Amino acid sequence: MPATSHLTLGAIVFPGMDQIDFTGPFEVLSRLPDSTFHVLWKRREPVRDINGLILTPDLAFHEAPPLDVLIVPGGHGQEAFMEDEEMLAFIRQRAAQASCVFSVCTGALLCGAAGLLRGVRATTHWTAFHLLEYFGAIPEDARVVIDGKIVSAAGVTAGLDGALRVAARLRGDDVARQIQLAIQYAPEPPFHSGSPQTAPLSVLASVKAATHQITEARLATARRIAQKLRISVA
Amino acid sequence: MPATSHLTLGAIVFPGMDQIDFTGPFEVLSRLPDSTFHVLWKRREPVRDINGLILTPDLAFHEAPPLDVLIVPGGHGQEAFMEDEEMLAFIRQRAAQASCVFSVCTGALLCGAAGLLRGVRATTHWTAFHLLEYFGAIPEDARVVIDGKIVSAAGVTAGLDGALRVAARLRGDDVARQIQLAIQYAPEPPFHSGSPQTAPLSVLASVKAATHQITEARLATARRIAQKLRISVA
Repeated sequence: MPATSHLTLGAIVFPGMDQIDFTGPFEVLSRLPDSTFHVLWKRREPVRDINGLILTPDLAFHEAPPLDVLIVPGGHGQEAFMEDEEMLAFIRQRAAQASCVFSVCTGALLCGAAGLLRGVRATTHWTAFHLLEYFGAIPEDARVVIDGKIVSAAGVTAGLDGALRVAARLRGDDVARQIQLAIQYAPEPPFHSGSPQTAPLSVLASVKAATHQITEARLATARRIAQKLRISVA
Repeated sequence: MPATSHLTLGAIVFPGMDQIDFTGPFEVLSRLPDSTFHVLWKRREPVRDINGLILTPDLAFHEAPPLDVLIVPGGHGQEAFMEDEEMLAFIRQRAAQASCVFSVCTGALLCGAAGLLRGVRATTHWTAFHLLEYFGAIPEDARVVIDGKIVSAAGVTAGLDGALRVAARLRGDDVARQIQLAIQYAPEPPFHSGSPQTAPLSVLASVKAATHQITEARLATARRIAQKLRISVA
């Protein structure tokens, strides 16, 4: 049932993140009627995304009000915070109060490391999909997965689709439709290369090669975290 | 034919813009091999987008190197710069040197005000589509329109589709496909409300009402500019 009171949303930004994991959801959810959207980081200091875009938080973690919606983006930089207690504690605390936790891309791994995905159906970027089970999640290969209060979107641009689902849940389908029309979201990708199932094999091989190192690093981290969380992976 | 030399891209940011008009193309085009992407504004000072996101330029206009690609985003804030000589002169000068000028959303109106759209096929946000002819453009109702070196994308999120077309032109189809796969751009909007042709009538009416004032202001401005450019509209 759509909420009727004022909504407070907050998205975490961090160094090395993938900016559109955040700016996609911001585009949709900052348009919700009767809502406030905060951009959050440990300190009130700008960070750079993996491709150099400067992102500036409005509030430091310790200044953030209680959140109805917590948005956790991903990107290669997520790897550096998988065992960062300040990051994980913030996610854990805010998630406990929130009515919706929305991860985008490998933001799901951060939520997993914070212990939020145990027994929860979830998705993430296709290169990290096999890692979900290390956090006790039930991997579901979909663009957007909703399980209770945990909403997860697949890689990067899936945050737009996920955000429209979150908008609908918070304020009803018609508000989500109005936002979709305002941002003219009637996508027409010029190629059919947006998923590993549809991309040409040579393209898939290139992207796998380019992400091999980060994928290996993420696996090693996921194994350590699984041990800490006492999750056994077959 | 794809370029083989180093590419310099630059996107203008400005107060009141719509951030994803810029962050969408940034996501795609900052990933081009052998390229540099600059974020540009009159001064090296942060601006806020229409929904409050802080965007920070890397360089001031006067510091910008020659650009191969000039990206001109839009948003309601564009209206304040339609007769701003500093903005228009920058667009005009950089467009003259560039091999590609890429407008997103109502960035097309800024390009029009700079005199770049005379006799050029172009598109823009659906609420502003009827204004294109005031700049001498040939309106073409498509997601992305390419006419010579001028590439224009429709509203807001169309910048992603346009950027993939620009990427393909600059570095070839396979590079664009790799980027599409890396950002998992296989969109699945949860509603069919992304264009005025497909949105429910009540949704269309709501968005038209919400944008009535800016649309009227844009019309008045477009009429003044048409007079200045000596373009007569039937």
